[in-house]
Amino acid sequence: MRIGELSRRTGISVPTIKYYVREGLLPAGQLTSPNQASYDESHEARIRLIRALLEVGGLSVAAIREVMTAIDDRERPVHKVLGAAADRLVPRYDQDPGAGVIEARQVVAELVGRRGWRAEAGGGPAGEALAVALAALDEVGHGTFAELLDTYAEAAEEVARADLGYVTRGGVAREELVEAAVVGTVLGDAVFAALRRMAHVDASGRAFGEGV
Amino acid sequence: MRIGELSRRTGISVPTIKYYVREGLLPAGQLTSPNQASYDESHEARIRLIRALLEVGGLSVAAIREVMTAIDDRERPVHKVLGAAADRLVPRYDQDPGAGVIEARQVVAELVGRRGWRAEAGGGPAGEALAVALAALDEVGHGTFAELLDTYAEAAEEVARADLGYVTRGGVAREELVEAAVVGTVLGDAVFAALRRMAHVDASGRAFGEGV
Repeated sequence: MRIGELSRRTGISVPTIKYYVREGLLPAGQLTSPNQASYDESHEARIRLIRALLEVGGLSVAAIREVMTAIDDRERPVHKVLGAAADRLVPRYDQDPGAGVIEARQVVAELVGRRGWRAEAGGGPAGEALAVALAALDEVGHGTFAELLDTYAEAAEEVARADLGYVTRGGVAREELVEAAVVGTVLGDAVFAALRRMAHVDASGRAFGEGV
Repeated sequence: MRIGELSRRTGISVPTIKYYVREGLLPAGQLTSPNQASYDESHEARIRLIRALLEVGGLSVAAIREVMTAIDDRERPVHKVLGAAADRLVPRYDQDPGAGVIEARQVVAELVGRRGWRAEAGGGPAGEALAVALAALDEVGHGTFAELLDTYAEAAEEVARADLGYVTRGGVAREELVEAAVVGTVLGDAVFAALRRMAHVDASGRAFGEGV
């Protein structure tokens, strides 16, 4: 198809499509004449993925380029491609970690060991985000909240199993996998947070009933 | 104790404490002379709660005043006090909802019925946040993600039960309950999101192994 048709199908303007090509996010179309290129479904899928990473994941163009490089590296196992995308969806902490974070990393390492999770040393970027959250709890006098970690981890495992089933439901085409993983990771957080609040209202209503 | 001692104990400056009193967040101390007031542990607890609402919950001073009014209204059941605080921790959507949100509200209402959750009609602010997230999934072509809702809801129930146990571990003093609920709600989201990503890495590693 021509670029105009690609634009119509994806709802993305022609200048934006050209920008994606220039930035190395989207492969150039096949030249059919000196000033005309032809695009196919792979370009459509790629644009859909770019939009998910940009709009849902909030990734920068540079970060998206890295994810695309991972997808296009056919030597890289699917697991590592998903990891490359997922690692970019975790908030980064660039400041020097305080003593609380250093202590919390140990708690995270023990949790990873206890759950038998496959993970980079320290749990990778997500493990570091967990250590930062645990240190924040400790700082506001709620260090004992960490006692709930295993209950949380078990719930997270159930949700993650369902997520993986969802992500792989349509086979293992790398682009679709990554797109579903990004959308599911980011919007799944919002879904779970809302459900947790609704479940709080229910649990609190049951515990305290009326008139307490 | 005098205001200087209250400041030392809480780490909050004297002018800030006076600001909280002027804004109606903190009850004034008991006057012991025309220009000296005396404060007690209740003021210390209240300041700790104000800080949690401000720094962890990201609430505005006006929203904190509403939460304090709920706490101080002894006619109001604990359940409603927790609800008043929790409702302010949910992102608000002021724009007109699109057709997708209106449709998703029906999905939320059915879920609430299916789970037998005690909830306001529509699930309250959290139910609305859920409808917005579901509509966003639908908009990016992932409406079928909603098939995971019950798995998510079950995990949320488990986590909420643990949360409630944590919140009520020290008895049911209203200020402590609300403080633990705010801290646990906000930082618990971060803890769960990090654990979910770690569980994704584990699940993906098991599913795809090496070399895929």
